Amino acid sequence: MRKPSRLTCLELIPLHPTKPKVLGAFLSPVYKQIPNININFEMAEQSLPRAENVLPLTEPPKEGGSEGEKGPSKGALKKAAKEKEKAEKAALRKAAEDAQKKEAEANDVSKNDYGELTLFGTTISSIPGPNDVPWIELETLPETFDSVEHAEGEPHVVFTASVQNARSQSASLAFLVLQHGFETVQGVVAKSETLSKQMVKFAGTTPSQSIVRVHAQVKTPKEPVKSCTIQHLEMHIKKIFIVSKAIPQLPMQVEDAERPLPLEGQEAQTEEGGRPNVGLDTRLNNQVIHLRADQSRAVFHIKDGVEILFTEFLRSKGFVGVKTPKLLGAPSEGGANVFEVTYFATKAFLAQSPQLYKQMLIVANFQKVMEVGPVFRAENSNTARHLTEFTGLDMEMEFKHHYHEVVSLLEELMLYIFSGLRTRYAKETAVVRESYHVEEFKLPEAGKVPRLEFAEGIAMLRAEGVEISDFDDLTTPQEKQLGALVLKKYGSDFYVLDKFPLAIRPFYTMPTNYNPEDPNSGYSNSYDFFMRGQEIMSGAQRIHQAEFLEKRMREHVTPVDPESKGLKDYVNAFRYGCREHAGGGIGLERIVMLWLGLPNIRLASAFPRDPGRLAP
Amino acid sequence: MRKPSRLTCLELIPLHPTKPKVLGAFLSPVYKQIPNININFEMAEQSLPRAENVLPLTEPPKEGGSEGEKGPSKGALKKAAKEKEKAEKAALRKAAEDAQKKEAEANDVSKNDYGELTLFGTTISSIPGPNDVPWIELETLPETFDSVEHAEGEPHVVFTASVQNARSQSASLAFLVLQHGFETVQGVVAKSETLSKQMVKFAGTTPSQSIVRVHAQVKTPKEPVKSCTIQHLEMHIKKIFIVSKAIPQLPMQVEDAERPLPLEGQEAQTEEGGRPNVGLDTRLNNQVIHLRADQSRAVFHIKDGVEILFTEFLRSKGFVGVKTPKLLGAPSEGGANVFEVTYFATKAFLAQSPQLYKQMLIVANFQKVMEVGPVFRAENSNTARHLTEFTGLDMEMEFKHHYHEVVSLLEELMLYIFSGLRTRYAKETAVVRESYHVEEFKLPEAGKVPRLEFAEGIAMLRAEGVEISDFDDLTTPQEKQLGALVLKKYGSDFYVLDKFPLAIRPFYTMPTNYNPEDPNSGYSNSYDFFMRGQEIMSGAQRIHQAEFLEKRMREHVTPVDPESKGLKDYVNAFRYGCREHAGGGIGLERIVMLWLGLPNIRLASAFPRDPGRLAP
Repeated sequence: MRKPSRLTCLELIPLHPTKPKVLGAFLSPVYKQIPNININFEMAEQSLPRAENVLPLTEPPKEGGSEGEKGPSKGALKKAAKEKEKAEKAALRKAAEDAQKKEAEANDVSKNDYGELTLFGTTISSIPGPNDVPWIELETLPETFDSVEHAEGEPHVVFTASVQNARSQSASLAFLVLQHGFETVQGVVAKSETLSKQMVKFAGTTPSQSIVRVHAQVKTPKEPVKSCTIQHLEMHIKKIFIVSKAIPQLPMQVEDAERPLPLEGQEAQTEEGGRPNVGLDTRLNNQVIHLRADQSRAVFHIKDGVEILFTEFLRSKGFVGVKTPKLLGAPSEGGANVFEVTYFATKAFLAQSPQLYKQMLIVANFQKVMEVGPVFRAENSNTARHLTEFTGLDMEMEFKHHYHEVVSLLEELMLYIFSGLRTRYAKETAVVRESYHVEEFKLPEAGKVPRLEFAEGIAMLRAEGVEISDFDDLTTPQEKQLGALVLKKYGSDFYVLDKFPLAIRPFYTMPTNYNPEDPNSGYSNSYDFFMRGQEIMSGAQRIHQAEFLEKRMREHVTPVDPESKGLKDYVNAFRYGCREHAGGGIGLERIVMLWLGLPNIRLASAFPRDPGRLAP
Repeated sequence: MRKPSRLTCLELIPLHPTKPKVLGAFLSPVYKQIPNININFEMAEQSLPRAENVLPLTEPPKEGGSEGEKGPSKGALKKAAKEKEKAEKAALRKAAEDAQKKEAEANDVSKNDYGELTLFGTTISSIPGPNDVPWIELETLPETFDSVEHAEGEPHVVFTASVQNARSQSASLAFLVLQHGFETVQGVVAKSETLSKQMVKFAGTTPSQSIVRVHAQVKTPKEPVKSCTIQHLEMHIKKIFIVSKAIPQLPMQVEDAERPLPLEGQEAQTEEGGRPNVGLDTRLNNQVIHLRADQSRAVFHIKDGVEILFTEFLRSKGFVGVKTPKLLGAPSEGGANVFEVTYFATKAFLAQSPQLYKQMLIVANFQKVMEVGPVFRAENSNTARHLTEFTGLDMEMEFKHHYHEVVSLLEELMLYIFSGLRTRYAKETAVVRESYHVEEFKLPEAGKVPRLEFAEGIAMLRAEGVEISDFDDLTTPQEKQLGALVLKKYGSDFYVLDKFPLAIRPFYTMPTNYNPEDPNSGYSNSYDFFMRGQEIMSGAQRIHQAEFLEKRMREHVTPVDPESKGLKDYVNAFRYGCREHAGGGIGLERIVMLWLGLPNIRLASAFPRDPGRLAP
C-alpha cells in the first residue's frame, strides 16, 4: 500500500459530487425490490452462506454393508461397531454445533446486516430517493464531507469499496482499510447492543481485495488515521455485505506490486523485512493485481495524459484525426518484420505503421492528419524497450516553405506534452516516483530545443574519442552517450537530431542534396527526437512525386518494387498531384517510459506483447 | 466540384492566420539558398523541363551500314539516299525549331516566372522575413483580406494550391480554379509587358489536380466569381511553378466522386449530361481521388467529430482512456469469426473487441475505462453495413446501484454526440447532404430517450402482425420495422432496447432473473442502442464473480471452456474481487453512416476492409 497522503485524482476524474443532503438522514430501506430488477429473493437467501445454509461436510453413515454375499467377519463387525459409534458421536457433535449456531443466529441482532451477496442480482437497490441514505463514492468523500457542518449528527452513507486489509482487534472490535481509486479510509466495526460479535468476526475476517458494500456513519476520529489517505474521517460500519469475495491466497500481493521492479535476474530475492521482490514475469502474469498498485495505475493515467495532450495540441493546429487500416493486402515497408494474417482464402499483413496511408490522405487533400493507434512489429527483439504491439502517435502535414516548419511544430508539440504532464499530472507522477526514483526530466529553456545536425552529433562523439564514420547509424549506446553530451552542453534531456544520412532512412525520405551519380550518398531531410538519449520519434520530409519515388525505391540500399501489390496504389497516388509534406511517428510507451524513468517499457503497456508474451 | 458557397472549415481547422503585413510589400527573393537547406541549384536547373533541356526524341542517323560484307544493292542505295534526305530535312526542321525555341526563350520575358520544379528539393525558400512576400494558405485568405483596407495597392502573396481546372481563354488570357481545403479561388494569367504568351500557355494547360505554387496580386473582381467559393477576390498570377504535375488522364474525376453513389448494379450508367455515375468499386480503387471530393472528406471530419465528442463526454465523467491488446494468445470470444496471425513460432489471434480486457481493467480498479481502437471480425458478410475492420468506441464502468446508471450515462453520451454534431459540424453535414439527401435525424425530447424492454418491442411488432416468439432475436428487417414503429410512437430515430433474452447474449452477460433449473431462459441486464432502426451499440451488465461466470460459460447455448488458454486469465481475475460493472461497444462507422444516411458503411471508412477488399 502506498504511503498515505492526500493524493486524490479528482483533477483527473471529476466524479459527480454527491450532494451533501445526508445530514439527519437515517437508515431507510435501500435494498428493495423494484419492478424492473426482478431479483429472485428466494434464491438470494438460499445462497447466503449463513450457518443454516452451510451443508454438513461429513457424509451421513452408509446404510447396510457392501462386502458381498457372505456374512461379515468378526473384525469387520468390530470395525463397523466402532464406526457406528464414531458416526453417532459426530452426529451428536454436529447437532450440538447446529443448535449452537441456530441459537447464535437467533441471538444475532445483526443477522440482516452482514453476509455475502448472491452470485447474481447483487444489485438490488434503486437510485436513492431524497430520503434514502445516499450512495457515495469513496473518492469524492473528502470533498463532500469537508464542506459539511457535522452539527446535526453523524451522516450515514452507503458505498462500495475494496478491502485493503481487515483485522480483528478483539472479539468486539475489527478494523478495515477500505479503498476506492487512489483513496483509502478506515472502517471500524465495534460490538454494541445493535451490532453482534458475529458481525465483528465476519467483518474482521474479510479476505483482502474483496469488494464490500458498506453502510456507515461518518465520524471524526480522535486522532488522524495515519494508515489511510483520508485521515480526518472514519467509517463506523453498521452493515457490511461482500459483493465479490477474493480468494484467501492471491498469486501475488498488491503491496509487492507497489515496490519497484527488481533488476534483471533478481526475482524472488527478498528485501524490506523478508518480502519477496516480485519480478516482471510474475507481475505480468498477474497483471490485474499488479495494476492495482497505485504506482502501476498512475502510469496509465499519465499515458492517457500524453495522448490527450498530443491530440489537444494538434487539433488546435488544425489536424484531423484519421483511422488507417491495420490489415493490409501486402507487406508495404520492405516486407521484413511483418505479421502475416490468414484472411479468408488469402493472406493479409498487419500494418507496421500508418506511414503509407497517412501520406495517401495528404494526397487526398486532408492537409494535416493525425492518428493514435496500434502498430505491429514482428521483430524478435527481447529488450527492455521493444514491444511487438505498441501505440503509435502519428502525424503528417503539408507545409508551406520548408520541412523545418514541421520540425518546429513537433518540437512545440513535445514541449506542450512535457509541460502538460508537469502541470496536470504532478500527483500521478509523484505516486510513480515513490517507486521509481529518477531525476526530474530536464526541459530546454522556452523555445530553445537543441536541434543538432547529424554531422554535428558525430563530431561531438568523435571529440569524446568514439570511432564512427560520417554515415554510420548510431548504436543504442552511442545514442545514449550523445544524449548525455547534449544534456551536458545544452542542459536538456530532450533534443532533435536532424539531417540523417540518406542511406540509413526509408525509401520515401526526401534527400537533402541528391546526387544521381551516387544516389545513396549524402544527407536527407529527416530527423529523430530523443528523450534521455533514447529515440522516441522518427520523421522526415517525404518524396511527393511519383517518378522520383519510384527511382528511390529501385535504387535504395534495400530496394523495393514500386510495381508490387503493396506499393502500387501508394506510388500511383503521387501521379495525381501532391503537396510537399512531412511528418513523424512517436512511440507512446517510449515517452511514458522515459518521462517516468521506468526500467522497462512493459510497465507502460497494460497488457504488453513481446515475442514470448501473448497473455493475459 | 461542389456548388460554391462560403463554406470554410475554419471552425474545425484553426490555421495560423497570416498577419496582413503584406501591403506595399513587393516581390523580393523568396527562392534563395539558405545554409541549412543545401539545394543543388545546378541540378535543379538541369531537370527543369524547359525547351533547352528537353532531349531530342529523334535518334541521330546511323553511321555506316550493317548489311554484311557484300556491297549494297541499287534499291538499298536509293533507299539510303532517300533516308539521308529525310534525315537532313528533319535535322534542318529541328534546327529551325530549336532556333525558334531559343529565340522564343530569349524573348520570353517571363522565363524565370514559370516552369516545373525539380523532382526533389522543391522546397527552396526560408520562412519569409518581414520584407518578404508573405506565404499564405488559401483557406485563411478570406479572413486575412476581408479585414484589410486595399488602399495602399494590391497585396502580393505566395501560396500553394491544387488546380481544379485550367483553361486558355485566348493566347493572352488563361483562367485557373485554385483549391485548398474546402476553398476555391479564381486565378487569372493575362499577357502583359512583363508576362509572356508562353507563360499564359503554360498556365492554361496545367493538368487538373496538379499542385502549383503561385505568386499573385490579390484583386477585387468586377463581378463576384460565381464558380468559386471565394467570390469577392481573385488572384492575378505573376509567377506559377508546378510542384507536382498530375497525369493528364486521371482514373476517375473528382467531379464524379462528388455525385452520390449509384444504387447497386447501376455502375457506369450515365446521368447529368452524359457523365458516368461512378460505382463504389471504382471509387474505392481510386480512393485518394474519391476522397478529394468535398463530400467524401466532410464525412471524415464528422467521423473525427464523433470520436472527439465520445472522449470529451466520457472524460468529463471521469473515464480514463486505455489501450487493450489486439494480438491475443487464443481466441477469446467463442472462437468463431476470428483472424489468425502467425506469431513467430506460434499463433496469435486478432481481438474481436476489447471486451475481456476492459473488464480486466475494471478488476484492476481502473473504475471507468474507454478505448477507441480497431476491432477485427472475420465475418464473411458482404453487406452494406459490415466491415472486417472497423473502429470500436468502447467503455466499461463500475456502477453503484443498478446497471441502468450505465444505460442512462450511455443515453446521455449519445445525445451529447448528436447535439455536438448538430452544432459543431453543421457545415460539413450540409456538404454531405448536397450528395446524400436524407431526412434530418430526429432526436427525442430532452432527456426522454425511448427505452423499451425487449418484450415490449416484441409486443409492438406482434401488434403489426409480425410472427415472432418471445425469446427470438430480431432479424434486420424486424429491427428496421421496430425502429419505424418507435419513430412513429415516440418521434425519435434513436432508442434503447433493454433486457434482451439471456440465451441470445454472450456468456458474460448478467441474467436478470436467473433460474438454475432452466439456465438459458428468461431475460438479461443487456441492451442495444438503435439509430434509424439499426443497431449501433451493444452492452450489458457483466457477471463479476468467477464461480457464476464459469457456470455460465459451461451452460451457455454456445458453451466455452473457462479453463481454456484464452479465458483462464479472464476468469481468474474475478477471483481477486470485482465490483459490479457494465459497459458497451459502439461501432463508430455505423454512427457516421446512420447519422448522415450514407447508403454504404464503406463510405465511412477511409480505406475500408471487407472479405474481398484489402487495398488500397
